Amino acid sequence: MTGPRYTPLAQSLPATVPFVGPETQERQRGAAFKARLGANESVFGPSPRAIEAMQQAAGEIWMYGDPENHDLRNALADHHGVAPENIVVGEGIDGLLGYLVRLLVEPGDTVVTSDGAYPTFNYHVSGFGGVLHKVPYSGDHEDPAALFAKAAEVGAKLVYLANPDNPMGSWHPGADILAAMGTLPDGCLLVLDEAYVECAPEGTAAPIAVDDPRVIRMRTFSKVYGMAGARVGYAMGAPELISAFNKVRNHFGMNRAAQAGALAALKDDLWLEQVQAQIKHARERIGQIVREHGLEPLPSATNFVAIDCGQDGAFARVVLDSLVEQGIFVRMPFAPPQNRCIRVSCGNDADLDAFAAALPKALASAQG
Amino acid sequence: MTGPRYTPLAQSLPATVPFVGPETQERQRGAAFKARLGANESVFGPSPRAIEAMQQAAGEIWMYGDPENHDLRNALADHHGVAPENIVVGEGIDGLLGYLVRLLVEPGDTVVTSDGAYPTFNYHVSGFGGVLHKVPYSGDHEDPAALFAKAAEVGAKLVYLANPDNPMGSWHPGADILAAMGTLPDGCLLVLDEAYVECAPEGTAAPIAVDDPRVIRMRTFSKVYGMAGARVGYAMGAPELISAFNKVRNHFGMNRAAQAGALAALKDDLWLEQVQAQIKHARERIGQIVREHGLEPLPSATNFVAIDCGQDGAFARVVLDSLVEQGIFVRMPFAPPQNRCIRVSCGNDADLDAFAAALPKALASAQG
Repeated sequence: MTGPRYTPLAQSLPATVPFVGPETQERQRGAAFKARLGANESVFGPSPRAIEAMQQAAGEIWMYGDPENHDLRNALADHHGVAPENIVVGEGIDGLLGYLVRLLVEPGDTVVTSDGAYPTFNYHVSGFGGVLHKVPYSGDHEDPAALFAKAAEVGAKLVYLANPDNPMGSWHPGADILAAMGTLPDGCLLVLDEAYVECAPEGTAAPIAVDDPRVIRMRTFSKVYGMAGARVGYAMGAPELISAFNKVRNHFGMNRAAQAGALAALKDDLWLEQVQAQIKHARERIGQIVREHGLEPLPSATNFVAIDCGQDGAFARVVLDSLVEQGIFVRMPFAPPQNRCIRVSCGNDADLDAFAAALPKALASAQG
Repeated sequence: MTGPRYTPLAQSLPATVPFVGPETQERQRGAAFKARLGANESVFGPSPRAIEAMQQAAGEIWMYGDPENHDLRNALADHHGVAPENIVVGEGIDGLLGYLVRLLVEPGDTVVTSDGAYPTFNYHVSGFGGVLHKVPYSGDHEDPAALFAKAAEVGAKLVYLANPDNPMGSWHPGADILAAMGTLPDGCLLVLDEAYVECAPEGTAAPIAVDDPRVIRMRTFSKVYGMAGARVGYAMGAPELISAFNKVRNHFGMNRAAQAGALAALKDDLWLEQVQAQIKHARERIGQIVREHGLEPLPSATNFVAIDCGQDGAFARVVLDSLVEQGIFVRMPFAPPQNRCIRVSCGNDADLDAFAAALPKALASAQG
């Protein structure tokens, strides 16, 4: 009696998780975190209108969500001045990246990303048998020219670029991205991950025509909109590409309350502005805290700050481990030389007080 | 300037949806349905405790859900007397079927199901390039012996069987399924979809050891637990197979409020019993209504009743279209001879009053 016959690809894959969740770490520690600043969630929460919409929808949760996401897609289309046919809604950017990779990548196909960029994208590429090529950051910025040159060199079907970048918080003016696309090789699709664009300076969103077949843009309600746990992301692109998602997506995959919450969140501009201000304030405060200890905060267009600990990855790892041990959930970049940093999400005053209180001991551990 | 280079498989797939949602039909009609009885949702709703848990979690939705689904998996393990390693939680059975097919099926691999059985399973099989072989129902029951014989004949990697069955509502005693598995060919995995088992007679759940490597069982909070819009399903099976899902699943794909709601729902036995009684009552009432018009309700172990309209598929289609036109959302089986029936989900008294009021005109349309 033998077990199931997995595909050769499935047999070759490790059972893995792109990120260990904070709950897992809490169970391992045997204690809850004092400050949850590691996953770039928005501690400032979603719009009260979104909360109310989700609470109301809880009583109607016996109904499946609309598989067309009609109302949300139309509202997003209005919001961006595009057509509903330019927008597909999915289970977070993570879910949409999985569908996109599935549409384009089969075993042996090549894909390009930056060394140390979003691991969940890499997870999906490997999961469909794609071959990843990585280019280094330029300084602490992703390097569009190098990414597109590598894509040309290896004949990549997909190239991934986050603007603003995670985990470094750096960004390019959107016009520079568009200009760099002049060297994007024919037949290579740019996945432009703009998860953090709502807290970036004016002009960071790339001024790309939504029907441009060379690019697909990913957006989310998980970051500035404060709804990470709801799993609502969307992609914008040319109608042909957008409709291709209907070949593979889980049509009834969206949570009905999350659909309602996102729709309400999108309409609350005032809350968005308030969160943008809170993020700005928190970035400044994180900068002050770490400067007092001789560390350098990197400029950030996101809801987190990468902090240069001034030495190598091993040093930063000790700082991070001590912070975690003291109840401060934070993370750090994966690849050198960016892993000289730790990454701290914007928190409220109590969160950042806790971080400030824990930092001296963490630095002493690393220095001692 | 060319567009994205899709895989040959993706190019070959149609943009499709396994089911057209009721919201789409409402938009087409320009009016809301009076009774929503087409998707086997539970109009009786979820446990008030589940609603309360989801409402409370709405304020915490800024946090990603636990990617391990630790608390829910452990509660489910306790509930079923198995280990957490026997359980994987996912975005509804639909999501889990997609992951399962991806793990086992590559282009050209064979899969067996019944002609007229769950189309979303077929959608996933086709979506990964699998070749579907279908066997007819035996009477209005799925036919385990014929399914397993066909699986042996074509060397299937997967065979799908729903018990109780959708769309017919028929069922086999679980012991008969286990006995039939003696002819399940070596290396063929049985996907036993038990979505409706909580409203089936005692003994319908198959008495299969959870570590049996020949089978994976699918369960859901979408039916009797009344949480279709939350997207919470789970699969039970041998630990090796269950852990394989960690190679491909969207680890951060679960809605945090849905996790909390399912956990609360699982603990409310009293609510479950109440819904089971409401389902029983509604099945009886549907039977009375249709008998009054000379139609035959089929025996049901589910939260819906298949109604034999006494003639062919074209006749039943006219009945169905008229009901829909009159504001009663119902569906019907896809394949003959089961498509002589329409399928009506259990409703509350007002829903069934509306159905009873619309039925005479629908029958007159078909007869005229």
